[in-house]
Amino acid sequence: MNCLYGLGVGTGNPELITLKALRILQSVSVIAYPASETGNSFARSIVAEFLQDNQIEIPIVLPFKLEKSAQPFYDKASEQLAEHLNSGRDVAVLCEGDPFFYGSFMYIYDRLSPKFDTEIIPGISSVMASAAMIGIPLTYRNDVFMVVSGILSEEVLKEKLKVADAAVIIKLGKNFNKVKQVLEELGLIERAKYIENATRENQKILSINEVEAETVPYFSLIVIPSQYDFRF
Amino acid sequence: MNCLYGLGVGTGNPELITLKALRILQSVSVIAYPASETGNSFARSIVAEFLQDNQIEIPIVLPFKLEKSAQPFYDKASEQLAEHLNSGRDVAVLCEGDPFFYGSFMYIYDRLSPKFDTEIIPGISSVMASAAMIGIPLTYRNDVFMVVSGILSEEVLKEKLKVADAAVIIKLGKNFNKVKQVLEELGLIERAKYIENATRENQKILSINEVEAETVPYFSLIVIPSQYDFRF
Repeated sequence: MNCLYGLGVGTGNPELITLKALRILQSVSVIAYPASETGNSFARSIVAEFLQDNQIEIPIVLPFKLEKSAQPFYDKASEQLAEHLNSGRDVAVLCEGDPFFYGSFMYIYDRLSPKFDTEIIPGISSVMASAAMIGIPLTYRNDVFMVVSGILSEEVLKEKLKVADAAVIIKLGKNFNKVKQVLEELGLIERAKYIENATRENQKILSINEVEAETVPYFSLIVIPSQYDFRF
Repeated sequence: MNCLYGLGVGTGNPELITLKALRILQSVSVIAYPASETGNSFARSIVAEFLQDNQIEIPIVLPFKLEKSAQPFYDKASEQLAEHLNSGRDVAVLCEGDPFFYGSFMYIYDRLSPKFDTEIIPGISSVMASAAMIGIPLTYRNDVFMVVSGILSEEVLKEKLKVADAAVIIKLGKNFNKVKQVLEELGLIERAKYIENATRENQKILSINEVEAETVPYFSLIVIPSQYDFRF
């Protein structure tokens, strides 16, 4: 029975994909992945060394500047993948990090899972990978852990983060200065750590005050580790 | 240079360990893992098929009923591991899920990382694996995501969960009925899904009302997925 796979490929280091993701990656005849208009695909670059010569590749291209909704692009991509599935081919969609955790794969999944067999292979999330790379335990015992997006307003970010014992702030980019202001107001500047390109060769870990706001990539993140003290 | 590794081995399916975890697992001379008084170790069972004959194994045994703090047991285990590290042996501590996400490895890490080189290999967390197994996308776009422990009081759970768009509730066990009460009061009973032994052969996925409270294992969890509608 042919199947649509959502394949978590982790955060950038090819060694951080799972044995299962590798097996499925090398067994399917069609591989799809998000790509830019210039053809670059971060997800594909992670697993490039594992791809087979005879595999059909389908870039899912989103324009850099979206005039309206991205949804028509997912309609089109889903139709393309459905054709392959209807022709009896297995299709794997490569997903940075984990497929169901803030991923764009879900737009494909929502459209195709009612019609086709689907299987999700979980991946290493940037949340866990970043804490590992920074070298600070993220959450202990009964900590409340939170992930928030830097796109949220200053007021909302402040209100949400107050509730958590440990947190990760994703989607930084041009939201960095706003997020930094929030961390300052909450007294979290010293505790928080900034990381970009986690697990990749160009990985960078900085304290918040060292970061140059204008250089911050969208996919960098800030980790606010638990303050738990094990010496109780 | 000898090194202490915190090795994420994922949630139960041996195929969900990373290529990196497998490489390090098979290269170290000493392997440590949490174990019960009877010698059972879930972490070890996940990777049993990959272990080498000549590896030294160190179970980190915690008594089933702790009279006082668990910390003296971590003192002792850390001393044992330090001896091997001082003798020039690499040591890998097997960690269910991810080493820095609600793990007991952190008690070892906090003691030994000031003295020895350490490296953390992130693992597939039950948070991501459970959503994948249930087949419901966990978080979209700018959702606020939260992890809370079922050990928290009814009042605290209610107050915290109100703030989130999607959440995972860990450490159920005998807290199940309390958590169910909270879900009822927040109108989340229909949306939430229960999962035990995620990614293992005896995995079970149930709606909340199907669960028999007295059978709920401590390490089962409840996923409350995002309500985001992609058709915007």
